[in-house]
Amino acid sequence: MVNYILKDENAVYYECGFSCDNELFLKLGNEAFFITDPRYTTQAKEEVKNAEVIEAKRDLYIEAKKIIRASKIKKIYYDPADFKVSEFNRLKQSLKITFKAAANFSQKKRMIKSDDEISYLKKAVLLGADAFDEFAKYLQSEGELKSELEINFEALKALSHSGRYPVSFEPITAIDENAAKPHATVSEKTLELNSLLLVDAGMKYKRYCSDRTRCTSFNSEISFKKEQKFSDKKIQKVYDTVLKAQEASIKASKVGVKTSDIDKAGREVIQKAGYGEFFVHSTGHGVGLDIHELPVVSQKSSIILQENMVFTIEPGIYLPDEFGIRIEDMVVVTSNGVDIL
Amino acid sequence: MVNYILKDENAVYYECGFSCDNELFLKLGNEAFFITDPRYTTQAKEEVKNAEVIEAKRDLYIEAKKIIRASKIKKIYYDPADFKVSEFNRLKQSLKITFKAAANFSQKKRMIKSDDEISYLKKAVLLGADAFDEFAKYLQSEGELKSELEINFEALKALSHSGRYPVSFEPITAIDENAAKPHATVSEKTLELNSLLLVDAGMKYKRYCSDRTRCTSFNSEISFKKEQKFSDKKIQKVYDTVLKAQEASIKASKVGVKTSDIDKAGREVIQKAGYGEFFVHSTGHGVGLDIHELPVVSQKSSIILQENMVFTIEPGIYLPDEFGIRIEDMVVVTSNGVDIL
Repeated sequence: MVNYILKDENAVYYECGFSCDNELFLKLGNEAFFITDPRYTTQAKEEVKNAEVIEAKRDLYIEAKKIIRASKIKKIYYDPADFKVSEFNRLKQSLKITFKAAANFSQKKRMIKSDDEISYLKKAVLLGADAFDEFAKYLQSEGELKSELEINFEALKALSHSGRYPVSFEPITAIDENAAKPHATVSEKTLELNSLLLVDAGMKYKRYCSDRTRCTSFNSEISFKKEQKFSDKKIQKVYDTVLKAQEASIKASKVGVKTSDIDKAGREVIQKAGYGEFFVHSTGHGVGLDIHELPVVSQKSSIILQENMVFTIEPGIYLPDEFGIRIEDMVVVTSNGVDIL
Repeated sequence: MVNYILKDENAVYYECGFSCDNELFLKLGNEAFFITDPRYTTQAKEEVKNAEVIEAKRDLYIEAKKIIRASKIKKIYYDPADFKVSEFNRLKQSLKITFKAAANFSQKKRMIKSDDEISYLKKAVLLGADAFDEFAKYLQSEGELKSELEINFEALKALSHSGRYPVSFEPITAIDENAAKPHATVSEKTLELNSLLLVDAGMKYKRYCSDRTRCTSFNSEISFKKEQKFSDKKIQKVYDTVLKAQEASIKASKVGVKTSDIDKAGREVIQKAGYGEFFVHSTGHGVGLDIHELPVVSQKSSIILQENMVFTIEPGIYLPDEFGIRIEDMVVVTSNGVDIL
């Protein structure tokens, strides 16, 4: 792909080390251009690497078209998920070149991480794990009854390190039967002794995301370790099954394996325990600049693992109106299986 | 407009009182359809008004096309800013009807608020103002030096009422020369005695947004009242000019007036004081379900005010590398001028 245009912030950041909320990035053969408005040009000139910064006086698309026309190129690639119809119409209008749709081309490029990227992802996971520990301390603290709402805000505080880092997504903190909803929203429930608490949360370090899920039960020694003891036998059985499924998927992950086989390894454990119909989502997703990127790890995905791919392994069992369990970690593919980040 | 399709959450919410992050809304003559996936159908059936809820087993676009085909319509309206190219391609493919682009048609409909909407906006503004007062209390508190980062998180805490309400946007809290950037990002500066602090923040009540900006100076009696005393004479002069400009724009706002004349009234005050070139943005924007909607209040906007329009009036002066002042309130057009919300 010699010529392409990008607008997505993470895709552009990957190309040139900078992005902002009003930008176009053009790669035309050996030349590259970062187009933005006067609010951002000073910073862009300091931070953009390997591309010329162009200040658009009125409209970014007008500048992009000037550059495209001057370049005499005949064909340019774009991702149809990257542009709204209105934006694409502005871009195409009066330009006599061919636009070739290339779905996900930036995410495909970004699937295998560099060593620097892996070090940022590791740091994000580490800081994210520290935040889970901070959050556990808050939960151990005495005081008023803790509501799901209050807990959720404290999770945000812990994950963001009081606003120092962005979060990867709004933390999910779900109690008991709310944990049975894979996309739980915050309720007015309060945490009572032995309540089940599911926490799915992550943060960003140098723009790279972490993502982790733990389940635990509320008592004075609450922690987010993977080893968990529940007073309810059914919860314990489901928890142990999910943990075994996660271990099976982790074990199945190595260079040359198809992603659907990773899903299969964990899903079989859950099916054998009789909970197959309650594992209602796929096993995992790539993580990098985007919280959800390639590879997808599902029953139908067919990407072959290569070294330095990074993705989540997060099987779950959700018993409607009862409770749900999910355990999630991020892994990186090495020459010898995977490392848990 | 008899037939239309919508995807934007606020646009869909306005039509039927419910929305979620995976939905299509179809209005075909007298019939309406809310299409979503199994995660949301239970709640949708409880909350959607005046539309049939359709559960899409695989793809929302396949369901939408089935309904469109069965209806025998020939023409359908859509907003080209509402769909990505990839989504629109999926929608159009194999459908033999005409798609008519209608930019902003949902926002145009929503420009004049109902009495219920105004009551929600009033409540949002009231709760937002309470949050500014809470935030002032935190700033008055003794303790460690307060960094911009820490202040910013406390603003988020206050505006969200500790997570109880969503914020309209990430709060802006800028100190001294950072306040000179209309889109300041958080720095490592700390608040010192007599520092200038600019706060632009809002929250949502029943999905309706508030938006407010205040400037103040840091001392033990810090408050976000509009009357402010600054020890620096230049800051005081600029502040008084912006306040006078805001008052002029508010006074100019009444039924029948063109929005550009509201901008002009305030801009003239700032120009006369010699700061014209430092008022680098427009005077205001509509507010409702979206934080930025119609009418735009700028030098070029030509919407004629009608009763029950709601918008911000927020002139500003930004002296690069020195400081910036902006004062912002929301107003509603009444039979007799405007009321400040």
